[in-house]
Amino acid sequence: MRGRRLLARADVVVVDRLAPGELLDELAPHVEVVDAAKIPYGRAASQDVINSVLIDRARAGKFVVRLKGGDPYVFGRGFEEVLACAEAGVNVTVVPGITSAFAAPAVADVPVTHRGVAHEVVVVSGHVPPGHEKSLVDWDLLGRLRGTLVLMMGVERLGEFAAALLAGGRPHDTPAAVVQDGTMRTQRVVRSTLDDVAADAREAGIRPPAIVVIGPVAGLAGSADQGL
Amino acid sequence: MRGRRLLARADVVVVDRLAPGELLDELAPHVEVVDAAKIPYGRAASQDVINSVLIDRARAGKFVVRLKGGDPYVFGRGFEEVLACAEAGVNVTVVPGITSAFAAPAVADVPVTHRGVAHEVVVVSGHVPPGHEKSLVDWDLLGRLRGTLVLMMGVERLGEFAAALLAGGRPHDTPAAVVQDGTMRTQRVVRSTLDDVAADAREAGIRPPAIVVIGPVAGLAGSADQGL
Repeated sequence: MRGRRLLARADVVVVDRLAPGELLDELAPHVEVVDAAKIPYGRAASQDVINSVLIDRARAGKFVVRLKGGDPYVFGRGFEEVLACAEAGVNVTVVPGITSAFAAPAVADVPVTHRGVAHEVVVVSGHVPPGHEKSLVDWDLLGRLRGTLVLMMGVERLGEFAAALLAGGRPHDTPAAVVQDGTMRTQRVVRSTLDDVAADAREAGIRPPAIVVIGPVAGLAGSADQGL
Repeated sequence: MRGRRLLARADVVVVDRLAPGELLDELAPHVEVVDAAKIPYGRAASQDVINSVLIDRARAGKFVVRLKGGDPYVFGRGFEEVLACAEAGVNVTVVPGITSAFAAPAVADVPVTHRGVAHEVVVVSGHVPPGHEKSLVDWDLLGRLRGTLVLMMGVERLGEFAAALLAGGRPHDTPAAVVQDGTMRTQRVVRSTLDDVAADAREAGIRPPAIVVIGPVAGLAGSADQGL
């Protein structure tokens, strides 16, 4: 609600591919909308261009809203933009959003924690595979945890992540659920086990954006389905 | 926004202590507001009473909104209520909210992930201390992770949790930040290290609700403060 109030004051709105289009429909005609997904450069360079757009418009006295899809601070590079603005002397107010890491499981009837079942949840990026030189994640260690693991951006290499967790000691029959297009009309859910989830997701034709939940909580939903 | 639309249709609203009061001010006069925090029983029994209120009102044909403070599925017992409703044949729609585990750090200029710094974040409950018979958490293992750890409901026993992480191998100089009353006018932030955070929080008089962030991301904020 706070974000929407600020959107109503915007002179410039910089949006991502995953930002909700219905919010943009409410904007006044004079508002400049910059589609960050259409900036025609490589990934790193396009971030520089986004930063420049934010800074240049703000310095020109415009009220700029950066509308991110999902949670800007959960693998969203939001803080990079905050730092760039801070270095340029541009004031920034951060309005937290709803993180897809928890919301997508929720709408698929998977609570990321549940009393007596899981008292911890790890959210981890699948942007680089296990063992990659840029990986900061100790997958072997994650495989030894017994709570909930939420894997983001990892569905295309799900087999590699599942194998790494199994190698770490996570049991083969650990429940797993894949949620594609969470909260959207096109939402699809695949329920499986750690052993089979990669094959089941592939067979079901699951595509990004998708979130994978691994842990006992992924097996609770069946008991609720009757009433939902 | 979806939650607000549903609130506007409510006949009955069941709220927690941490639910935002300004939303309740918008309700029509005929709406029954049940304050779940005032139900006069022990913790477990009061959950049963809440479940009964939800089910009884729904069976009486009322449109019931259960308004939780924070994320119902992050140590919020939300799924217990969903299961109780499902068993009673009451249909439930879940509207995800903003999780304080990520929002409170965000408003304190701590991104829970940051490219090249932390590619994983663990959210863990401090409701029971390390080694407690009801603990499901392997604190030694968490001490070996190098990403971000968000500790919820743990500020009153912060010394015990910090000691457990240190014993697991987490470095003494790991940055740590404590956020009390995140996003509220009374918000306070204490920045420290894993070694000193318990003493610093105590000295600052930090009280629940408070969230503790441990990891390199807690040390990034200084570079942005100048412009924020």
